Amino acid sequence: MRAVDLIHKKRNGGSLSEAELSFLIDGYSQGDIPDYQMSAWAMAVFFRGMTAKETADLTLAMARSGDQIDLSPIRGIKADKHSTGGVGDKTTLIVAPLVAACGVPVAKMSGRGLGHTGGTIDKLESIAGFRTELTRDQFLTQVNEIGLAVIGQSGNITPADKKLYALRDVTATVQSIPLIASSVMSKKIAAGADAIVLDVKTGSGAFMKSLEESEALARAMVDIGTQVGRRTAALISDMDQPLGFAIGNALEVREAIETLRGQGPKDLTELCVALGAHMVMLGGQADSLEAAEALVREKLASGAALDKFRTFVETQGGNPAVADDPALLPQAPVIIEVTVQTDGFIQRIDAEQLGLAAMLLGAGRATKDAGIDHAVGLTMRRKTGERVAAGEAIVLLHVREDSRKVREVEELVRSAFTIGGEAPSLPPLLQSVVTESGTHRYG
Amino acid sequence: MRAVDLIHKKRNGGSLSEAELSFLIDGYSQGDIPDYQMSAWAMAVFFRGMTAKETADLTLAMARSGDQIDLSPIRGIKADKHSTGGVGDKTTLIVAPLVAACGVPVAKMSGRGLGHTGGTIDKLESIAGFRTELTRDQFLTQVNEIGLAVIGQSGNITPADKKLYALRDVTATVQSIPLIASSVMSKKIAAGADAIVLDVKTGSGAFMKSLEESEALARAMVDIGTQVGRRTAALISDMDQPLGFAIGNALEVREAIETLRGQGPKDLTELCVALGAHMVMLGGQADSLEAAEALVREKLASGAALDKFRTFVETQGGNPAVADDPALLPQAPVIIEVTVQTDGFIQRIDAEQLGLAAMLLGAGRATKDAGIDHAVGLTMRRKTGERVAAGEAIVLLHVREDSRKVREVEELVRSAFTIGGEAPSLPPLLQSVVTESGTHRYG
Repeated sequence: MRAVDLIHKKRNGGSLSEAELSFLIDGYSQGDIPDYQMSAWAMAVFFRGMTAKETADLTLAMARSGDQIDLSPIRGIKADKHSTGGVGDKTTLIVAPLVAACGVPVAKMSGRGLGHTGGTIDKLESIAGFRTELTRDQFLTQVNEIGLAVIGQSGNITPADKKLYALRDVTATVQSIPLIASSVMSKKIAAGADAIVLDVKTGSGAFMKSLEESEALARAMVDIGTQVGRRTAALISDMDQPLGFAIGNALEVREAIETLRGQGPKDLTELCVALGAHMVMLGGQADSLEAAEALVREKLASGAALDKFRTFVETQGGNPAVADDPALLPQAPVIIEVTVQTDGFIQRIDAEQLGLAAMLLGAGRATKDAGIDHAVGLTMRRKTGERVAAGEAIVLLHVREDSRKVREVEELVRSAFTIGGEAPSLPPLLQSVVTESGTHRYG
Repeated sequence: MRAVDLIHKKRNGGSLSEAELSFLIDGYSQGDIPDYQMSAWAMAVFFRGMTAKETADLTLAMARSGDQIDLSPIRGIKADKHSTGGVGDKTTLIVAPLVAACGVPVAKMSGRGLGHTGGTIDKLESIAGFRTELTRDQFLTQVNEIGLAVIGQSGNITPADKKLYALRDVTATVQSIPLIASSVMSKKIAAGADAIVLDVKTGSGAFMKSLEESEALARAMVDIGTQVGRRTAALISDMDQPLGFAIGNALEVREAIETLRGQGPKDLTELCVALGAHMVMLGGQADSLEAAEALVREKLASGAALDKFRTFVETQGGNPAVADDPALLPQAPVIIEVTVQTDGFIQRIDAEQLGLAAMLLGAGRATKDAGIDHAVGLTMRRKTGERVAAGEAIVLLHVREDSRKVREVEELVRSAFTIGGEAPSLPPLLQSVVTESGTHRYG
């Protein structure tokens, strides 16, 4: 087998077999196939696409390229979730204990943040004492005992995907649905869960700008899951503004706790209920989505989800008292108000720009090895569609000290808001659900 | 400027500017842009194509990447020709002195053979004493004095094209008309001629299998020439069988001399007259193609073309007596007849397979540094469409000695001929002419 012949086949619209895709991915991982052949192949895939079978075969080849987590010592149907990225996305902090409280085990690996997006591991580490490194045995035992554990991602999950993604990034071949889908799903499959619920963001602030594209990506990922025997569903949600009000690690944990107490922002709560309900359904703890949703809402209302969060924090070494008194979380000493300069309605909030602002304040990393400050970040007072008056504070910056840099960030934050005279029409948060059996649009 | 943005632009169907293409080619030549970005760009070009302007800009950028020959010390409009490759193609040996005899200066650089195709330089070196390495001054002076010189190609002509071609070869990106056209034309433009006549082969034995594809390639090359101020035309000729009867260096020189004497094979003679007439027209020595063709035929008939060949050989140190007595050329001691096993008509002759056979006999190189035997090769006795009888010799192998290897080549040669019951319909040799003003199909 020669790589050039496989590129040629794909270039001419053919489909590669499982053996051919394994040859490419294994050869690339081992350094036998050079970058210049993989980038040509990726560009051919950009133009020709891949069949569902090819996409699944590619995904499995990448999943096999590194560590594969065996969750079989855990009883039950293990559920996982994945978000295609989002600013202020603290859903894992809420959904994981919520689903565990419903009886679905969650053995989750999460990442750290980079650039304008935060990472669940960084957020959890803002809780004093919380440990995100467990041994394999500790991890499995904890899930069996309390139904839930979250650890940092193994360094050797899907190295072939990491290498290929870095190459795609510099060869304009990122934007291919089968390649994006296989990249996401290879990590989820290697992470071992039986049921996977995907949170696919759509809108101008997201990677996929249109609902049609988002549905196509969701469909590709669900098809991969189905082909490889994982129960998979995808929820498509609007990402034209940050989720909830808080951006920044401890600030987001606080908002997550409020949500687990039933006092969270409406958009965040609704997305968590929807994601949780799908996980509970796929996890076999409800016969219908309606029953799953009822169960999820009951666990929120009864405090069972918050109890699960408290136990989870305590078991991983963190201070469980934060669940009852979020003021115990790190707090920034200085708060700066960002005011709006005109009357009107908020037309749009640039989520990416706010994520960047939080990073510049110290909440995120510009480079992989940079440190972060858990206490800093920003909290929004208003969201898209709301009426604002000139001079009103729309965002609070939580900072160590006032400085010229903070004042620059203030400008960046202000410019992330588009104010106009008319109330904008707002898209629904939940737009579409893609499951094995079909695609269902809301509203 | 970043390469990834240029790949992205082309991927999305945009056109790159002259500055952008120079950035790519200069960066690639200098090693600042890696292979993996160029291969992704080449694949995007495969799918998206390039405008005539882009193709010309790319060509000039590649022409500038190495030596550019300045032929301005030579008086008159210098003409060059190029063939897209062919087995048994000895047209340069005939056309160059023919055109020079008509008053059009020919200052030509030629290559050596590789694989199943021969090279003009190898063919000329089968004449005892012939030197293909001249200094720049000797080269220019000789053309001014006798109207003609042929030398080996400079090692540093279009290094960017060499590097890119090698990359395309292993990334399935060869078969792109703008990339093929710019590769050919960059070398011709760097070689300095004012007028360029292209001999584009078509048919199952050629790189371009259909007349439409061949015309598209010819059009792309003529457009490049026109855009950069070179008078350019392309002749499309059938390549479903070797040109003439001889394949092998001295054997081809002998056939060229016979053609210059007016006793050559009909197909070879007609192609040389057509190529020569276009060169004479573009070289300004005739007002119409009809007048150019009449002049060319007159120079053949009068012996002026043969005289020019004799002078050319003598001036470059070769034995001029070969022009009058081709038996002075190296001759192989052993001749083996390849017979046909059935009665019938020759339906098809696989030219590439015969080229491979000649190479295996020692007439060509399997690798760049291999030596060759000028005397060996093969001569055909029959061509496509002719009737043959079982037991009849259709090819003579000219070899050093009989051997098992020769017997294997004999089989290869025999299997290159397809014999059938019906006389096949033969395509005309000359199929189409592409000039600045349009495309004209023959017949």
